[in-house]
Amino acid sequence: MSSTLGTHEMAGAEVSVDNIEASRVSGTSVYDTQGEKLGSIDDVVLGKRDGRVKYAILSFGGFLGIGEEHYPLPWDALKYDERQGGYVVGIPIEQLKGAPSYARSSTSAWDDPAYGRGIDDYYGVRPVI
Amino acid sequence: MSSTLGTHEMAGAEVSVDNIEASRVSGTSVYDTQGEKLGSIDDVVLGKRDGRVKYAILSFGGFLGIGEEHYPLPWDALKYDERQGGYVVGIPIEQLKGAPSYARSSTSAWDDPAYGRGIDDYYGVRPVI
Repeated sequence: MSSTLGTHEMAGAEVSVDNIEASRVSGTSVYDTQGEKLGSIDDVVLGKRDGRVKYAILSFGGFLGIGEEHYPLPWDALKYDERQGGYVVGIPIEQLKGAPSYARSSTSAWDDPAYGRGIDDYYGVRPVI
Repeated sequence: MSSTLGTHEMAGAEVSVDNIEASRVSGTSVYDTQGEKLGSIDDVVLGKRDGRVKYAILSFGGFLGIGEEHYPLPWDALKYDERQGGYVVGIPIEQLKGAPSYARSSTSAWDDPAYGRGIDDYYGVRPVI
């Protein structure tokens, strides 16, 4: 039996390599529940004060007939999967296709507080307070 | 009396323009408690699963004799100040100067879970769970 354990295993199951620079989250793959790649994370939206990630901005990059728009999703709709090294989204593709989105070139939609509420309403979630 | 109220005022005091893309946080100014600029935020470090901002990486850019290193600070050490449009840090400059830091060119220090714990230990905070 090997005695070489990584830091991860030595530290116990509750401690894992969980932290990542926001700039490195960009490009992380997003999968559906069948393991098919939907696209990737382009950016995340933070609360300036509470330091919580509130939305992930997905880029589908032409996958599944969804264009080059930015699709903001409530953070809680994403679940990190260690095995795939990416996030799994359980939202049906038809709901994603009809979701609020904005063009890559536009200025920040988040300057308007109503914008986030529109996203929450569409996905039927309550905003993180 | 003017009847033109911005979205901010109409929505009530508890709702403000709080959300921002992580990519736009980079460059936000950081001040000391006297209002002197210390530097700016270079990046933030997120928990992949819990979606919490755990550290802000400060760049002092040569201010105050502190070099070009990255200085990770526990997120709770920063307080957003609407008036200044930036974050205020109450940590004495001498403590900042002696803090753990890493060079701009290095690969991600955060791949090692012990790295974050070292930051927490230095600033005497408990990690956000």
